[in-house]
Amino acid sequence: MGFEAFWYIDLLGTFVFALSGALAAIDRRLDLFGVVVIAFVTACGGGVIRDLCLGALPPAGLTNLAYLAVVGLAVALAGCLQTQLLRLAQPTLFFDAIGLGFFAAFGVHKAYTLVPDIELAMLLGVVSAVGGGILRDVLLGRVPVILSKDIYASAALLCALVQLCGELTWLDPQLSAWLGIGLCTALRMLSLRYGWNLPAIRKVQ
Amino acid sequence: MGFEAFWYIDLLGTFVFALSGALAAIDRRLDLFGVVVIAFVTACGGGVIRDLCLGALPPAGLTNLAYLAVVGLAVALAGCLQTQLLRLAQPTLFFDAIGLGFFAAFGVHKAYTLVPDIELAMLLGVVSAVGGGILRDVLLGRVPVILSKDIYASAALLCALVQLCGELTWLDPQLSAWLGIGLCTALRMLSLRYGWNLPAIRKVQ
Amino acid sequence: MGFEAFWYIDLLGTFVFALSGALAAIDRRLDLFGVVVIAFVTACGGGVIRDLCLGALPPAGLTNLAYLAVVGLAVALAGCLQTQLLRLAQPTLFFDAIGLGFFAAFGVHKAYTLVPDIELAMLLGVVSAVGGGILRDVLLGRVPVILSKDIYASAALLCALVQLCGELTWLDPQLSAWLGIGLCTALRMLSLRYGWNLPAIRKVQ
Repeated sequence: MGFEAFWYIDLLGTFVFALSGALAAIDRRLDLFGVVVIAFVTACGGGVIRDLCLGALPPAGLTNLAYLAVVGLAVALAGCLQTQLLRLAQPTLFFDAIGLGFFAAFGVHKAYTLVPDIELAMLLGVVSAVGGGILRDVLLGRVPVILSKDIYASAALLCALVQLCGELTWLDPQLSAWLGIGLCTALRMLSLRYGWNLPAIRKVQ
Repeated sequence: MGFEAFWYIDLLGTFVFALSGALAAIDRRLDLFGVVVIAFVTACGGGVIRDLCLGALPPAGLTNLAYLAVVGLAVALAGCLQTQLLRLAQPTLFFDAIGLGFFAAFGVHKAYTLVPDIELAMLLGVVSAVGGGILRDVLLGRVPVILSKDIYASAALLCALVQLCGELTWLDPQLSAWLGIGLCTALRMLSLRYGWNLPAIRKVQ
Repeated sequence: MGFEAFWYIDLLGTFVFALSGALAAIDRRLDLFGVVVIAFVTACGGGVIRDLCLGALPPAGLTNLAYLAVVGLAVALAGCLQTQLLRLAQPTLFFDAIGLGFFAAFGVHKAYTLVPDIELAMLLGVVSAVGGGILRDVLLGRVPVILSKDIYASAALLCALVQLCGELTWLDPQLSAWLGIGLCTALRMLSLRYGWNLPAIRKVQ
């Protein structure tokens, strides 16, 4: 599956997720410690929940100094370059979509390798991808944004399903992750471009 | 203990809990993904926390497609029949009380079987029963309703204690679960009928 | 390391943390069950997260009746003596700072003993100390206070680093915990006395 080549995508995804956490925390006027915590939780929280559910302990996100360094870099950048970063929304969203796909694909791969159960792999793939963002929003005292709008978790789910086909060798395992990440990124960017949303369930008055 | 016969009560409890989650999520105008997540977390969240604390991994709630199917059914019904369901509050509350008792009794049974510790079994029995509802409310950005009013967790605790007597063979183990679920349901329905609440601790001005 | 002598500090820290949880829950007008839950989560939540991440299951905080008894005592006192306790803010904060340091030092010790990884021990030391307070605030529907102001988590981090030097035998292991707790308490009390805060990252308008 070429997970060596994936190492850079992993760090890139971690960086972009940490950036989104740091910017949200600064917006809420947290102090330095709070900003670092929110950035770290956003970047590593989904993977930690996945590893807890798999019994893959200690969670990988807590024992790898590279993640902490990347989070530190993201916080430093978010502190210095807020205005520029907010103007760069489009590229940030693009890298975020790549990170989202990567986390979903890698989550499925790790889960299915440790516990070959289809439902578990699918659920933990999505949790890996969106769990950090949900924890970020809960800690910031707001309803998780991915639960109320946008094609975001759905893009992660699509990528997880493609990767699952790879794990089951219905697709070439060398290919499935790249295909999943590509589809996830495309779906996410198209939905942003054209304002696609999942149907809401209409509330009866 | 006749846990084969309990399979249907388990699915019934899961269904009613998922229904309450779905209705609350629709009320908050979440999108389809959000409604499914909240319904699933409400139904399976307590059991997942229990299994994490017991090291019974992967958590049973994440590997059984029957739960996912029941949650899907609950979301579909909640979307189509909101008005009717809200009018059916009384039967819904009745089945919810049965589910509450079942989850508490089963939580105690599973915990005590894996780790024979009285305190742990009691705590995890209650967590199995009320953990999902607490997670639902946290994700919806509100103080968990069971922490502020109603005889709800107390009914689960009563059932957990009765079941614990069964595990310790102070009561007939064949009987304790049914007795606990019955007492829990009765206490819950009576408290709703007569407006019983736990005493609040008065806040000094 | 004299952890026998630490038993009393552990109970003292648990008691003071439970007291802060109980007072916050009463302030929010939760019922008796809610107050007990918040007090218990504040006191034991950080340790439970630590044990989940270490795979030290079942979590120690859920199997020791002494903690439950101490939490019950704290709730009883908080209910009866609110006015007096609020007047006693200064001593409460002092014991809270000691408890904070103790939980950080003990968290590092337990983590490093089970999994000798420096980053993990540091992170879980801080989580042991501040995780309960974060869970308390999330359950009460507010942004965790330690993420937005005060030298609090930083004092726990200082203590964790000193204890880590002890685990690595850069410092006398007999000494490091007492030194860490002392420094943590001093830093915390001085920051309260002189109004020190971590720098906030200024939000660009």
